[in-house]
Amino acid sequence: MAMRRLKSVAVIGVGLLGGSFALALRRAGAATSIVGFDRDREALARAAALGVIDTVAESASEAAAGAELVLVAVPVRSVAAVLRDVAQSLAADAVVTDVGSTKAEVVATARSELRERFARFVPGHPIAGAEASGVEAAQPELFRGARIVLTPVAETAADAVERVSAAWEAVGGRIAILAPEAHDRIFAAVSHLPHVLSFALVSELAGRANAAELMGFAAGGYRDFTRIAASSPEMWRDIALQNRAALLDELDRYAARLAVFRALIDQGEGAGLERLMTEARSARHAWAALARRAAPGE
Amino acid sequence: MAMRRLKSVAVIGVGLLGGSFALALRRAGAATSIVGFDRDREALARAAALGVIDTVAESASEAAAGAELVLVAVPVRSVAAVLRDVAQSLAADAVVTDVGSTKAEVVATARSELRERFARFVPGHPIAGAEASGVEAAQPELFRGARIVLTPVAETAADAVERVSAAWEAVGGRIAILAPEAHDRIFAAVSHLPHVLSFALVSELAGRANAAELMGFAAGGYRDFTRIAASSPEMWRDIALQNRAALLDELDRYAARLAVFRALIDQGEGAGLERLMTEARSARHAWAALARRAAPGE
Repeated sequence: MAMRRLKSVAVIGVGLLGGSFALALRRAGAATSIVGFDRDREALARAAALGVIDTVAESASEAAAGAELVLVAVPVRSVAAVLRDVAQSLAADAVVTDVGSTKAEVVATARSELRERFARFVPGHPIAGAEASGVEAAQPELFRGARIVLTPVAETAADAVERVSAAWEAVGGRIAILAPEAHDRIFAAVSHLPHVLSFALVSELAGRANAAELMGFAAGGYRDFTRIAASSPEMWRDIALQNRAALLDELDRYAARLAVFRALIDQGEGAGLERLMTEARSARHAWAALARRAAPGE
Repeated sequence: MAMRRLKSVAVIGVGLLGGSFALALRRAGAATSIVGFDRDREALARAAALGVIDTVAESASEAAAGAELVLVAVPVRSVAAVLRDVAQSLAADAVVTDVGSTKAEVVATARSELRERFARFVPGHPIAGAEASGVEAAQPELFRGARIVLTPVAETAADAVERVSAAWEAVGGRIAILAPEAHDRIFAAVSHLPHVLSFALVSELAGRANAAELMGFAAGGYRDFTRIAASSPEMWRDIALQNRAALLDELDRYAARLAVFRALIDQGEGAGLERLMTEARSARHAWAALARRAAPGE
């Protein structure tokens, strides 16, 4: 869809995602002016010094005043306070979106904080990230080829969804629309569960008396499996609790499947074990081929 | 330790590990002649054509005849048959070693197959590999900086351990000595367990009715976590069954730790969850720093 140039965009939270969105929008010529706010005043000053934002606001509501599009790119636990503040100054046709990794709880928060403006809120989740964080890590190509999941609900205004979609497409994103609950179930399975499993393995091994010896022999398999255990504990604590029901369901399904593997090993059932492993390898190969086609640069 | 040049080395199994060992020994000037055997005659012919080996043998026993060092680099389930064959022609002071990922069962196999020659067998496990397999993937730098675990037992001759150590050091390996049972417990924890966990996740997700939708949203976390689920099912079936007792113990410990994470999530215990995740992240960071120091090229 053709992108109308936005006169003013507000970015609340100038970290990796907010900063990259600002840089990418500007490079695409999709925004005339970008105003930023961050609770971390030093990060905010650096964002201005780096040219990531044009104007520094003193509050979220000041940033949102007059903006056609407001991107809320703060940790999920801070979304309620930011929306409450933003609601005070929002123009009638302004559109608000977010980048949170869970969606059903964000929708409930937005409903109660934005009230009559809730139809102008488009819940969003860009599937992009990097090991680094902070505005210094921001890069205009972060969303090139990335899936951007939007989870509008019945009340969400169609033109609001269009405005948010156009902005993400302008920075290279590929829009997918899901219901919030479907989003949360899917990401519980393919993202939240693996993170908890990886944290749990390192937690288990690191707590042992012979942890140093174990770690001395850990190699490539351990490295790949545990890379995501180096992720932010605050962020993953919040995601796990916000998406609790779906994640518990995934943990239970996983535990049941692991018990099947355990039984096959215990009983020496090599044929059954090999069959499950072969199916898994085929699925992993098929996924890798799919992922290469979808994002060939990765 | 200074490497005496070996006159003849036999490599049984000219895949990635055997082929790389042959190439690396030659490059190091540590062997005058390398004879190879492989049940796969085409692979054997390619190994000769590629210059990985000097001479093609018609059997494992023919390859081993006259060799000072015999490297058995075949899947663990084939080790017994190879040792039985090799035992027929082995010179009195020849030394035999292997590359298997489990050690206690290999030691038992060698004891029964080599009998009075068992003191000349040095169980080994080079911690090196690559996604590719086969002699075409062989490369002389594969073992540069890699840990090589040797698991001699009480009967193992000291000069045999020295000969094997010197050969691995000549190709860049760093020797570590462990008891077979200690080796198997350590690798159950840091390697065999993560592989089973990764296979189990893909197995669980790939079997669902909405697997295609799930896979469409899987991204970087899934990619890293499941990379090892693309490993050889035959090899990992054998490892799981050969190291069954230690692996079952690890699976039980892991399931217990995962239950702790589940309970914290279920009860909304954010502080406890964050504490475990923070400890895990710290341990992962510490390991990564250690791994970089140990193998800076990786």
